[in-house]
Amino acid sequence: MTLIYESSKTLDRGARIGKMITPHGSVNTPTFMPVGTAGSVKAVGPRDLSEAGVEMILANTYHLHLRPGEEIVARMGGLHGFMGWNRPILTDSGGFQVFSLSSLRTVDDDGVTFNSHVDGARLHLTPESAVAIQEKLGADIIMPLDQCPPLPSSPGDLAEAVRRTTHWAERSLAARRRDDQSMFGIIQGGVDLDLRREHLDDMISLGFEGYALGGLSVGEPLEEMYGVLAGLVGRMPGDRPRYLMGVGSPDAVIEAVREGIDMFDSVYPTRMARHGTVMTSSGPLTIRNAVQADRTGPLDPRCDCPTCRNFHRAYVRHLIKSREVFGYHLATIHNLRFMADLMCDLRSAIAGDYLEDFRREFWANYYGEEPPR
Amino acid sequence: MTLIYESSKTLDRGARIGKMITPHGSVNTPTFMPVGTAGSVKAVGPRDLSEAGVEMILANTYHLHLRPGEEIVARMGGLHGFMGWNRPILTDSGGFQVFSLSSLRTVDDDGVTFNSHVDGARLHLTPESAVAIQEKLGADIIMPLDQCPPLPSSPGDLAEAVRRTTHWAERSLAARRRDDQSMFGIIQGGVDLDLRREHLDDMISLGFEGYALGGLSVGEPLEEMYGVLAGLVGRMPGDRPRYLMGVGSPDAVIEAVREGIDMFDSVYPTRMARHGTVMTSSGPLTIRNAVQADRTGPLDPRCDCPTCRNFHRAYVRHLIKSREVFGYHLATIHNLRFMADLMCDLRSAIAGDYLEDFRREFWANYYGEEPPR
Repeated sequence: MTLIYESSKTLDRGARIGKMITPHGSVNTPTFMPVGTAGSVKAVGPRDLSEAGVEMILANTYHLHLRPGEEIVARMGGLHGFMGWNRPILTDSGGFQVFSLSSLRTVDDDGVTFNSHVDGARLHLTPESAVAIQEKLGADIIMPLDQCPPLPSSPGDLAEAVRRTTHWAERSLAARRRDDQSMFGIIQGGVDLDLRREHLDDMISLGFEGYALGGLSVGEPLEEMYGVLAGLVGRMPGDRPRYLMGVGSPDAVIEAVREGIDMFDSVYPTRMARHGTVMTSSGPLTIRNAVQADRTGPLDPRCDCPTCRNFHRAYVRHLIKSREVFGYHLATIHNLRFMADLMCDLRSAIAGDYLEDFRREFWANYYGEEPPR
Repeated sequence: MTLIYESSKTLDRGARIGKMITPHGSVNTPTFMPVGTAGSVKAVGPRDLSEAGVEMILANTYHLHLRPGEEIVARMGGLHGFMGWNRPILTDSGGFQVFSLSSLRTVDDDGVTFNSHVDGARLHLTPESAVAIQEKLGADIIMPLDQCPPLPSSPGDLAEAVRRTTHWAERSLAARRRDDQSMFGIIQGGVDLDLRREHLDDMISLGFEGYALGGLSVGEPLEEMYGVLAGLVGRMPGDRPRYLMGVGSPDAVIEAVREGIDMFDSVYPTRMARHGTVMTSSGPLTIRNAVQADRTGPLDPRCDCPTCRNFHRAYVRHLIKSREVFGYHLATIHNLRFMADLMCDLRSAIAGDYLEDFRREFWANYYGEEPPR
């Protein structure tokens, strides 16, 4: 096993802190992974990521397969060498992007056929090819091809997606050739808790180095996702990392950490930054607003990221209003540090047994309201 | 006098090395100033500039006056505080951009009236307001409003532009209120050497802390510009910095340094970078070309900029092809370092009395041909 997970403390409700040890170093959990879609976390570089407190990133297999192609990435020493990022990386299987970005896709038990959104080329992705591509990309953790059904889906379609995901998971395990990468199993089943539990049991019996929840945060009400987490996370193996895919807003991250989730990824903080919304200790701030035009001082007086240490709020606003690339850069670094700080605060709150207090305080400061439930 | 210029060596032909001491530190000359149009050298920040070897930058008064406005910049501690750049800055007068970017402009002896290219607002710029704006922006060196006639212009129009530029220069000197900024006089006159010499004499008699050549590199054949330089630079005061405005391609920089020019500014290296052309010791490289797709190693094996030290050529190409902001960032840093290295090499060549050899070698390596003349 190339991935070691050690939990050092678990609260009654399930929230836990731990450490994940990969071939490219260790990661403190719970952790948030920024998304480097096309081999770059948009508008920042490896040094910026480290300075923002980022420990691990996610890269998209779909995008990298289309451009520049996994052969070129492999020749540069895999994603770590290609991106100049020598810390842990996770790649997704490409399936989610095939279902959300490509056109004219057809799916059957063999795999999925689709048109590239870059040049329209007809492409075919199978569980075996998704593994082969990810082995060339060389991430520390790879994911098996799964089927994420659209919302809403009929019970029959949900069950069919679960069956196919299990079938593909078996083939993905059999297709592995490298012994220095870990693979996580993906649990589907929409918001049907019984189906989710059945699927979790099936995936556990196949045996993975970690378990991920897919098909959540795809448009369903947050309350429904919280219901699935409350009924499912406690049944996920305690000695393996638990990963909630595609989640990155502070509210959902906090609620999921409370249930025992260890890993998250999302474009949320980086996309928000480019659109001019910065995350602060007193809530989201629309930096584009006219009222910010003459504000001295940092984006957040409680933040010590490179942006807040060196630049006035009015400068960041001016650059973003002027569509200057360096403005996206400054706002992105800040939001990434906000997420890294949030994860650090959550770990401290679990270690110090004050998670419920932290949660109430964060909700009051950031959202100005009580937490849900 | 707030600007001290000390020349430490001058070659027979006129090429010289020196040091310019400003309120924000000293600059080794000859020097190249990257352009931070809207308060940011596109795609890089202050730390990147320092790491690339940049000692001084130029910012555009026209753009900053329109957005965010000099009042806001002043409130942030001037351009140095606004941009987080604590080293020397020069601002232009805004005149060149009024003549090249704005629409519906009318010019008379009072000043120039134009429509903002941002929001269409009707604006008026005079020698006095150009000084007032630049005093609020707070650069170390400021420039008087001048009239840069279009190419081609009739002898009558050229003479009229020279007359008006002198008139405006007198008013600009009279309008100064700050004693911690220096002002350079701008010499116009197209490629008419007699007119240029007359104008230079007029500007010298007015008395400025440095002298700049405007209205060159605006589309005329390079040979014509070289002719003006050969006949004019030697007459510029030896105890003041000599600035060739808007020039930044290596060939023109080298030829102008040879005649005794000390300062340059241009968007050339940064714009080239964003368009996917990187400057290397063996010439310009079109990084977008397919042949670069699988190239390992740095953009230039002789370069030790942060981009070349940390990233493969194929990665920079991939990012630029994918329109990833970080690709523009990496290529920009490299081109800025190339220019900083070129200026450093030119200074060494002057110090070591081998400028003519350096010039021939550079031309051979970079352009694959003999230098002109």
